[in-house]
Amino acid sequence: MNKDMEVFEQLESGVRSYVRSFPTVFTKTKGYKMWNAEGEEYIDFFSGAGALNYGHNDDHMKQKLIEYITSDGITHSLDMASEAKAEFLTKFNDIILQPRNLDYRIMFPGPTGTNTVESALKLARKVTGRTDVISFTNGFHGMTIGSLSVTGNSMKRKGAGIPLQNVVTMPYDNYVNEQDSIDYLERFLEDSGSGVAIPAAMILETVQGEGGINAASFEWLKKVERVCKRWGILLIVDDVQAGIGRTGSFFSFEPAGIKPDIICLSKSLSGYGLPLAVTLIRPDIDKFSPGEHNGTFRGNNHAFITASAALDYWKDDQLEQNIHEKSEITLAFLNQLVEKYPALEGEVRGRGLMVGVACGADGLAGKIAAEAFQRGLIMETAGPNDEVFKLFPALNIDEAGLRQGLAIIEDSIKEVLR
Amino acid sequence: MNKDMEVFEQLESGVRSYVRSFPTVFTKTKGYKMWNAEGEEYIDFFSGAGALNYGHNDDHMKQKLIEYITSDGITHSLDMASEAKAEFLTKFNDIILQPRNLDYRIMFPGPTGTNTVESALKLARKVTGRTDVISFTNGFHGMTIGSLSVTGNSMKRKGAGIPLQNVVTMPYDNYVNEQDSIDYLERFLEDSGSGVAIPAAMILETVQGEGGINAASFEWLKKVERVCKRWGILLIVDDVQAGIGRTGSFFSFEPAGIKPDIICLSKSLSGYGLPLAVTLIRPDIDKFSPGEHNGTFRGNNHAFITASAALDYWKDDQLEQNIHEKSEITLAFLNQLVEKYPALEGEVRGRGLMVGVACGADGLAGKIAAEAFQRGLIMETAGPNDEVFKLFPALNIDEAGLRQGLAIIEDSIKEVLR
Amino acid sequence: MNKDMEVFEQLESGVRSYVRSFPTVFTKTKGYKMWNAEGEEYIDFFSGAGALNYGHNDDHMKQKLIEYITSDGITHSLDMASEAKAEFLTKFNDIILQPRNLDYRIMFPGPTGTNTVESALKLARKVTGRTDVISFTNGFHGMTIGSLSVTGNSMKRKGAGIPLQNVVTMPYDNYVNEQDSIDYLERFLEDSGSGVAIPAAMILETVQGEGGINAASFEWLKKVERVCKRWGILLIVDDVQAGIGRTGSFFSFEPAGIKPDIICLSKSLSGYGLPLAVTLIRPDIDKFSPGEHNGTFRGNNHAFITASAALDYWKDDQLEQNIHEKSEITLAFLNQLVEKYPALEGEVRGRGLMVGVACGADGLAGKIAAEAFQRGLIMETAGPNDEVFKLFPALNIDEAGLRQGLAIIEDSIKEVLR
Amino acid sequence: MNKDMEVFEQLESGVRSYVRSFPTVFTKTKGYKMWNAEGEEYIDFFSGAGALNYGHNDDHMKQKLIEYITSDGITHSLDMASEAKAEFLTKFNDIILQPRNLDYRIMFPGPTGTNTVESALKLARKVTGRTDVISFTNGFHGMTIGSLSVTGNSMKRKGAGIPLQNVVTMPYDNYVNEQDSIDYLERFLEDSGSGVAIPAAMILETVQGEGGINAASFEWLKKVERVCKRWGILLIVDDVQAGIGRTGSFFSFEPAGIKPDIICLSKSLSGYGLPLAVTLIRPDIDKFSPGEHNGTFRGNNHAFITASAALDYWKDDQLEQNIHEKSEITLAFLNQLVEKYPALEGEVRGRGLMVGVACGADGLAGKIAAEAFQRGLIMETAGPNDEVFKLFPALNIDEAGLRQGLAIIEDSIKEVLR
Repeated sequence: MNKDMEVFEQLESGVRSYVRSFPTVFTKTKGYKMWNAEGEEYIDFFSGAGALNYGHNDDHMKQKLIEYITSDGITHSLDMASEAKAEFLTKFNDIILQPRNLDYRIMFPGPTGTNTVESALKLARKVTGRTDVISFTNGFHGMTIGSLSVTGNSMKRKGAGIPLQNVVTMPYDNYVNEQDSIDYLERFLEDSGSGVAIPAAMILETVQGEGGINAASFEWLKKVERVCKRWGILLIVDDVQAGIGRTGSFFSFEPAGIKPDIICLSKSLSGYGLPLAVTLIRPDIDKFSPGEHNGTFRGNNHAFITASAALDYWKDDQLEQNIHEKSEITLAFLNQLVEKYPALEGEVRGRGLMVGVACGADGLAGKIAAEAFQRGLIMETAGPNDEVFKLFPALNIDEAGLRQGLAIIEDSIKEVLR
Repeated sequence: MNKDMEVFEQLESGVRSYVRSFPTVFTKTKGYKMWNAEGEEYIDFFSGAGALNYGHNDDHMKQKLIEYITSDGITHSLDMASEAKAEFLTKFNDIILQPRNLDYRIMFPGPTGTNTVESALKLARKVTGRTDVISFTNGFHGMTIGSLSVTGNSMKRKGAGIPLQNVVTMPYDNYVNEQDSIDYLERFLEDSGSGVAIPAAMILETVQGEGGINAASFEWLKKVERVCKRWGILLIVDDVQAGIGRTGSFFSFEPAGIKPDIICLSKSLSGYGLPLAVTLIRPDIDKFSPGEHNGTFRGNNHAFITASAALDYWKDDQLEQNIHEKSEITLAFLNQLVEKYPALEGEVRGRGLMVGVACGADGLAGKIAAEAFQRGLIMETAGPNDEVFKLFPALNIDEAGLRQGLAIIEDSIKEVLR
Repeated sequence: MNKDMEVFEQLESGVRSYVRSFPTVFTKTKGYKMWNAEGEEYIDFFSGAGALNYGHNDDHMKQKLIEYITSDGITHSLDMASEAKAEFLTKFNDIILQPRNLDYRIMFPGPTGTNTVESALKLARKVTGRTDVISFTNGFHGMTIGSLSVTGNSMKRKGAGIPLQNVVTMPYDNYVNEQDSIDYLERFLEDSGSGVAIPAAMILETVQGEGGINAASFEWLKKVERVCKRWGILLIVDDVQAGIGRTGSFFSFEPAGIKPDIICLSKSLSGYGLPLAVTLIRPDIDKFSPGEHNGTFRGNNHAFITASAALDYWKDDQLEQNIHEKSEITLAFLNQLVEKYPALEGEVRGRGLMVGVACGADGLAGKIAAEAFQRGLIMETAGPNDEVFKLFPALNIDEAGLRQGLAIIEDSIKEVLR
Repeated sequence: MNKDMEVFEQLESGVRSYVRSFPTVFTKTKGYKMWNAEGEEYIDFFSGAGALNYGHNDDHMKQKLIEYITSDGITHSLDMASEAKAEFLTKFNDIILQPRNLDYRIMFPGPTGTNTVESALKLARKVTGRTDVISFTNGFHGMTIGSLSVTGNSMKRKGAGIPLQNVVTMPYDNYVNEQDSIDYLERFLEDSGSGVAIPAAMILETVQGEGGINAASFEWLKKVERVCKRWGILLIVDDVQAGIGRTGSFFSFEPAGIKPDIICLSKSLSGYGLPLAVTLIRPDIDKFSPGEHNGTFRGNNHAFITASAALDYWKDDQLEQNIHEKSEITLAFLNQLVEKYPALEGEVRGRGLMVGVACGADGLAGKIAAEAFQRGLIMETAGPNDEVFKLFPALNIDEAGLRQGLAIIEDSIKEVLR
């Protein structure tokens, strides 16, 4: 083992994980590139699991952040009012919500994905007076008990050490062949003898990241919304990973034409990789009492600063254009890859720049990712059996970088299949 | 209403809370002072609810942070290895753990207090194979379902919308007059017919912050440790608010001479108010599988940088000296205050610079804090009925600032009691 | 209101139910006939909801019971040894288990259906160390919290006043059109990301009584058994209502060729309508500690006496022959009824003498049953919306009595449809 | 082993329990005497764990029962109206409720103790809309999941195989030395930060049977009632074992002068050892919907017949007199026993004819009971560690029988201590 890695082996808990797949010490990053202590360069197709959609250390945000720190702007403000927060609220409303004809109250539930999911579940239960929530197979929503309850992965669930309750799991789109999972779900709701109560909410990702890059069809999402409306169920879209442009639009659900009752955002919201999350709430169900949900790091002003700067990328459609173009290139590449290497038993999945290839043989995706790392590409696997290698380049990656990364993937596949 | 406040009224969720007590827009802060947009100055006796023990925007940390950002150091690294993280691990071990003869594995459970508490509870249940946890009256541990289950406050608990389970609440030190709550607790454990199973863990704060500045005696803490050892129960100290010097030593439990099995740290850990948390785990129970608990913002490198800089304050005992001196001044002041103003029906509580005065009459503490705000002091209330006004000055506050703040408190009391 | 009914109105709890459908005071019964205080005769197509499969006050059992009482035989023996219990155990083994090549340990869990179901669920969880149980849509297993958790009916579930946990409801046979519910179920088990853990047990009725006389196909039952074996899941057949001959054989599952791991029997087990239940347990999983499940009325010796006498009916195949013949008559009648009265939108359901007709229009089944009562027939409704009228004649009913009852049903339908 | 016992060894589940303490086959019983197959006579100080307060096979009840059976009276009536049920309702009201100035609606929840407890808990939760129930240390309420949740015994609780929820255990009277457990309990209710919510109900036995013959003082019971009233908590008295005269009055709580909101009765209610239970409900909280709680054996008419006959014993105070006299004799005897045999480290416990002696040394009570069985006395042990031998003679035992039994106890103690 690399001597620099010893400190982690000796001092950090065994729960550490990605460091095992990418065993090197990173020191510097810029855009879609990362460098380790030895100066070796890596292309980043991981992007902080979706927390770095704008790439690393974006210059615009960086400048704003340094200015703010230099001027002794308030760093930590709990949920007190600050100038930086006011600016974020205003820009989020002006640039994101209003142009999309969306009306939500903005809650700061704590700075991480699981904070926003927990706040959404609590609110939905409080508002409806019901206890159950419907989640979907292979959903991933976080590691605290509330969020973990609606997460499918059995290894993670066992980590709770207690039975996870008040949740009913229903099949995600295309879960069982030739069955429309929504008909199935609604059969349970219609039948007062089904044992499944009308739930407080349904929570879903429009494209499941950790669950294996499963993209729900727009038709399916519309049906879910229709069923929710019909039965007075709140629809929570967890857009923590699929949102902020990852699938092609700011909110992942925009092209499906649905309007969730509650939206969870985090990861790339701050733009710069800083912890920030919001829960967007339909105004008429904004029913928490003051302080009924709170948390110390709700007022991360550094993140407000970079988040406000990041919103500038959404003033026009340039970023969306870039995502679209790079997605086309990527999907075309992956499709030909799957055809060219039948031993992959590959299935191309995803939408926008949230894409991946599910591999038929056990462990294959992991081997490809490991080989790619050797060749200078950071790439994660996903899915219940880690059977998918997952491409999450920065949304503003240039074509050269993208093609360089894709080439490494093909080389890695060749090597692994040899 | 102030026009600047309108943006919060219009766009933010009604769950916002502190902004209602301190209705002004903050722009700049330094040390123990804060300024609003109009340039009005406030003395901060709130310190981000314990997240700003070193005051605001400390120059040493600020310089390190700006350097790091300027040099494009990696910002967001999940749980991959980074230079900034290696430095933090090393310094934390060298400056904090080793000199105290402590041996813990360091887990990064996500950057907030509730993340570390959830990870601690999950680990304790996994390691012991038991489901119940004993918490204590008026404990506060966080707002996600696992942490909320061990939190006492009934308003917060109702926010869950579901029954909170797998927890038994036992009386904290001095909860019921003339009864030793530990004898009581142990009676339940000894008796196989008590209905209380041997739990996975006990979780406690040595001084309860939100619960009303209740300080457990060292004797009581030692008894808790003894009972835990006797019955094979893991002892979790939630040092999120009481730790990092707030009560006089780095870990709040040091003077009690106990060694918890798991320690939760967050709030002032990063020093600069940036989100960071660690869970310290006795090496032989460091049993999570890789990735069994994870989270996007485990690798907040900006926070690693400032946290490492903050640790420099613990290389000698100067900070501890300052806490001690300022605590003496504060407690002396509060004691004479209580004597001087019997209408307060005041009771001085706390330890170090985590102190407060419980007021007898309903609503009195809140009125005093509100009046103090009008006079330029930021101060919070705590306790089940907000009956305590709570003094949390920066640990490195100078005597002038401290006395200025105390004077405002006395003036406010005079005004309120008039 | 009838004056005799006043005592019930005034003194009994409003939870009383069947007395509202059949508002008369019964005094005497014999075979398939009941008489009220006015001497009016009723034909009983209800049979104590399946607790009176041998009809009322059978002479053979009656004689044995009177002899036993007269001789001061022990009445109540908890789980001590008694002669009457020894006889029951021996005859149950000799007449029922051995000829069917079945090997089970016999547990007396308390004298009611819900006692046996609770004991089965507890045992399955203890043996497997797992907490979840899979139940099926429209299953009915009892009213105590454990049994209620696996019961589908939403009105009954709400009666719990707490969320019912540790249960996953899966679709019963034919629940969703053209979908094989077992493939569906197994998809959840195979997928480690489904959110559904491998359960301790599956619990089902082969024909659902309260749930609407839904008969699972033998093929479906075989598939369930196969899936249980494959995944190490215990199969619990709740034969409380469908067993003891009601569907044509002693155990309802015999013709499906399956062997459950645990079987729940009650209702007609005592033969005479006296409270008695057993839990049959595969010997290698008979793992309760002595007294780990207990109850005061496990040793109801009067019921042992009549149950032993009732077993004599199973020494040859005469009873089974009668069930078969009367079932043929009944089903033929119902089928022509449905054809003759299309306004019923009727669907004939069931097996053996556990049959019914689901009616399309809301409330129709209830009106038919009410009309039938006016005409001297006792008949219940079932199904989530009480949409099924349910024929449960005594298994030993003669042809005359059966045809008389069927004629009343047709007359009632004519009247109601008029 | 006795050859007659083989059938139980071979065919019955290992969960059987009392048969292990009393390994003989009983055939005949009368009054306070039992005989086995060999004609050996036993004095019964067990009385079916309180289900045979009137002794075995009482002649008055026996005659009524045989008459009823002979005349083909309806045996099983679910919750339909029957003459036998009308008579029971009327007599229960006239003889028991009215003379005591009590007004309750009578619910038939199923024929066992756990049925009535489950119905009481469900109703309390439904009526109040709250989920938690307060139970007391060493309470015993039944083996189904709802009742087991409020039962203290850890071995029984583990039998559930799932965490038991929605319950808070508080200390019973005298649980912790020199502490008033009600002050303790109320401290939790008063404090909105205690983590203990205002519960739906408190459930308790006035004298705990299985828990070790712990008798609550009348003062303590009054305090419980006062606290319940103050906080709007329903008081459920589980009088299944302590009721029907066992402690000296029909309801055990009469001398304490309290009026519970809900009362659970079973065991000796039928008088003859037949399964019967009622839940008595304060009329204004009689809020179940029709059929919201149901069960097959709610209408056990044989039990109605004997129960009505048994009520004749309460028309005057003769039975109560007898209990009082025999209790005096028994307690005097036990007190001198404890003094005479200090090696017992004995503590006399109980009230009426629900009495016992807690023995200091481990296993001693069990040895005494085993020796007594050898000498012709049936006697049980109780308490979390089976440290109490428990005297439950028939309430109508004559002095000769009582003294004979007591003498056997003394002889057994002598033998064991030798």
